Amino acid sequence: MRIAIASDHAAFAMKGELARWLAQAGHDVADLGPDSEASVDYPDYGYRLAAAIASGAAERGVALCGSGIGISIAVNRNPEARCALVAEPLSAALAREHNDANVIALGARLVGIEMAKACITAFLATPFAGDRHQRRVDKLSHPAIAPEPA
Amino acid sequence: MRIAIASDHAAFAMKGELARWLAQAGHDVADLGPDSEASVDYPDYGYRLAAAIASGAAERGVALCGSGIGISIAVNRNPEARCALVAEPLSAALAREHNDANVIALGARLVGIEMAKACITAFLATPFAGDRHQRRVDKLSHPAIAPEPA
Repeated sequence: MRIAIASDHAAFAMKGELARWLAQAGHDVADLGPDSEASVDYPDYGYRLAAAIASGAAERGVALCGSGIGISIAVNRNPEARCALVAEPLSAALAREHNDANVIALGARLVGIEMAKACITAFLATPFAGDRHQRRVDKLSHPAIAPEPA
Repeated sequence: MRIAIASDHAAFAMKGELARWLAQAGHDVADLGPDSEASVDYPDYGYRLAAAIASGAAERGVALCGSGIGISIAVNRNPEARCALVAEPLSAALAREHNDANVIALGARLVGIEMAKACITAFLATPFAGDRHQRRVDKLSHPAIAPEPA
């Protein structure tokens, strides 16, 4: 699978380890940066990852920052990205099954490397359930159809 | 504080309990629906909550669905909303401190009511740290300034 991975400085080490692990598992991995532990702004890398998903360059994305929160917000600014911030494999599987998530976000300062791998394994292995969930996922790609506040 | 709360059907019961708890604590709570456990689409309620934040009608938001994933994606489609999906209070505090999050998302089928209250308590009590975090938060409101993919 074509997988793009991006982070901020806080998650630089985890990004490298996960990129190697995914490549060893046979995936086509694109590391979108950063290239060092120098301080960067997570939105820049979140937007870059979301753009790779939107263009079709990547089928799935892995987004990392210290807590996972900032980069997950950034990725979800792109209506073609559906990014799930998770800390355990059940949520990672539900993100695929119910939300057809194409990006998984993890907090490198909060989740250990083996838990991160377990989350990504569940994320990559779980199919989308479709059915009633498809209508809801469609609405995530078209924010303009949102109703006005009551 | 003016707090808006919204959910899907899966989190309807938790929404009612949290709304009462927040009102008893003295907050001005706006329940944006749904009004029953009948099946609804989480994006509709996520967009409604984000619009209440963007308009200034609410200062903070609480977004609930079964896993918290779907509604957190929907809320973050609005560049004025910064929604953090959390399952424990440390992430809830970091979301405020580093990301100036204005919406907290929780998974009603994954997180118990007392853990949800502990997360919201940390979320409402923690100030934004500003400084270098301000520049990153500013970028979340202006996705157009994102760099092109490498």
